[in-house]
Amino acid sequence: MNHSQITENIRKKQSLLCVGLDTDINKIPKHLLKEADPVFEFNKALIDATKEFAVAYKLNTAFYEAQGINGWISLDKTLAYIPKDIFTIADAKRGDIGNTSEQYARTFFYTYPFDSVTVAPYMGKDSVSPFLQFDGKWAIVLGLTSNVGSADFQLLNCGTEFLFNKVLQKVASWGTINNTMFVVGATQSQRLKEIRHLLPEHFFLIPGVGAQGGDLDSVCRNTLNKNAGILINASRNIIYAGNDAYFAEAAANEAYKLQTEMKRYL
Amino acid sequence: MNHSQITENIRKKQSLLCVGLDTDINKIPKHLLKEADPVFEFNKALIDATKEFAVAYKLNTAFYEAQGINGWISLDKTLAYIPKDIFTIADAKRGDIGNTSEQYARTFFYTYPFDSVTVAPYMGKDSVSPFLQFDGKWAIVLGLTSNVGSADFQLLNCGTEFLFNKVLQKVASWGTINNTMFVVGATQSQRLKEIRHLLPEHFFLIPGVGAQGGDLDSVCRNTLNKNAGILINASRNIIYAGNDAYFAEAAANEAYKLQTEMKRYL
Repeated sequence: MNHSQITENIRKKQSLLCVGLDTDINKIPKHLLKEADPVFEFNKALIDATKEFAVAYKLNTAFYEAQGINGWISLDKTLAYIPKDIFTIADAKRGDIGNTSEQYARTFFYTYPFDSVTVAPYMGKDSVSPFLQFDGKWAIVLGLTSNVGSADFQLLNCGTEFLFNKVLQKVASWGTINNTMFVVGATQSQRLKEIRHLLPEHFFLIPGVGAQGGDLDSVCRNTLNKNAGILINASRNIIYAGNDAYFAEAAANEAYKLQTEMKRYL
Repeated sequence: MNHSQITENIRKKQSLLCVGLDTDINKIPKHLLKEADPVFEFNKALIDATKEFAVAYKLNTAFYEAQGINGWISLDKTLAYIPKDIFTIADAKRGDIGNTSEQYARTFFYTYPFDSVTVAPYMGKDSVSPFLQFDGKWAIVLGLTSNVGSADFQLLNCGTEFLFNKVLQKVASWGTINNTMFVVGATQSQRLKEIRHLLPEHFFLIPGVGAQGGDLDSVCRNTLNKNAGILINASRNIIYAGNDAYFAEAAANEAYKLQTEMKRYL
């Protein structure tokens, strides 16, 4: 999926919402556990309930990997169930030396045909570049993350700038606005504006609204650009909004609420 | 497996060798492709051929993940086949926010019961700490990697030190020498001595000898400590030493050659 298709979907649906299907089998409604594939049944119901409001789905691979083979089967079925016009993200945070990153790119662009994969930048250019070689596919590189630990290294002063600034600029120079996005945490409200200033045209994937405490208004005011340019992820708030037979309705309500708020900025 | 067991194995086998089973199905001898699980048959033969000389096996998960479910089955069988007294490493380079890193720790310590997993440090303390909560299990955190791209960020000046120095010291302060190791590339020969000086007691996993150009003599002279303190990984040199019916013998020869060299330093 290319840059303008993502923007078009955002305009059409009047939504910036990415639903994070970070599905923990220990947190899903108990009645689903009798199903052959409870995680898929949960995801399927959530997709049906939220697809009207979502322009992207993000699957954090950790939750699937922890279930072994069954987890990968659930992931595969979930990915196949997502409507083709909705952008898909393998939130896998991979990165390795060149020949190995290439294997990861194959994993998440072909074996499991996601539109994009999140990538950790610590190992530098040859660890990121292999993800930039596929038409219509995206690397979403960690810039400034939403967690407390982001202060440990990302906010180190490297000369006149923070490390995350160096990462954003250098990684941006390796790709284009058509194959590179950045993860920028909603919780970093005091830095969102300077990050948008640094990279006026790139798409940002913005987690941290909701459970992690980020503020939607501050995110939208500081990072929207002329092509929208942001995907705002919400996971726990939506997928665990309810925990009974009506969990999907509860999720739909949360997604609708978020989309209604987002619409005001578009 | 604890620190002193690893050291004991090194003394007993007179070896620092970690064999990297980074098995690419496109590079294994053609006659294996008729087997039901070619990757496992290849690994099994390699383990049989090299276990006398190896104190650790490292499976780079990328090569397995790229094969989908079949890859995870091969990985699982390979891990189960490795003798229990040999240290095992899931070279997965994972790292995410706290609740997610916990899922990765479960994946590589329980779902697939490795002794250790490699971890990317960019997201800071809450992304690394979840790997440090399991008795006898290890996080092997990226310090200064062997690839060219290591210069992009790891060698940035952050105040009076390089970023990798900050990472080594900070991460070391979060764990102990019994649950934390560091990846230090053999190709970084001019920095090995200062890294050992910085962390006199930690184990280092040292890739980059062989195909990547690192020098065994320089590695041993600069990083061995009183408990040995290093595992030296070789992958492509060993596992692709031969490409015909005698590939396992060729691998055994390469492993034996490396072990014989290593013995001189122990």
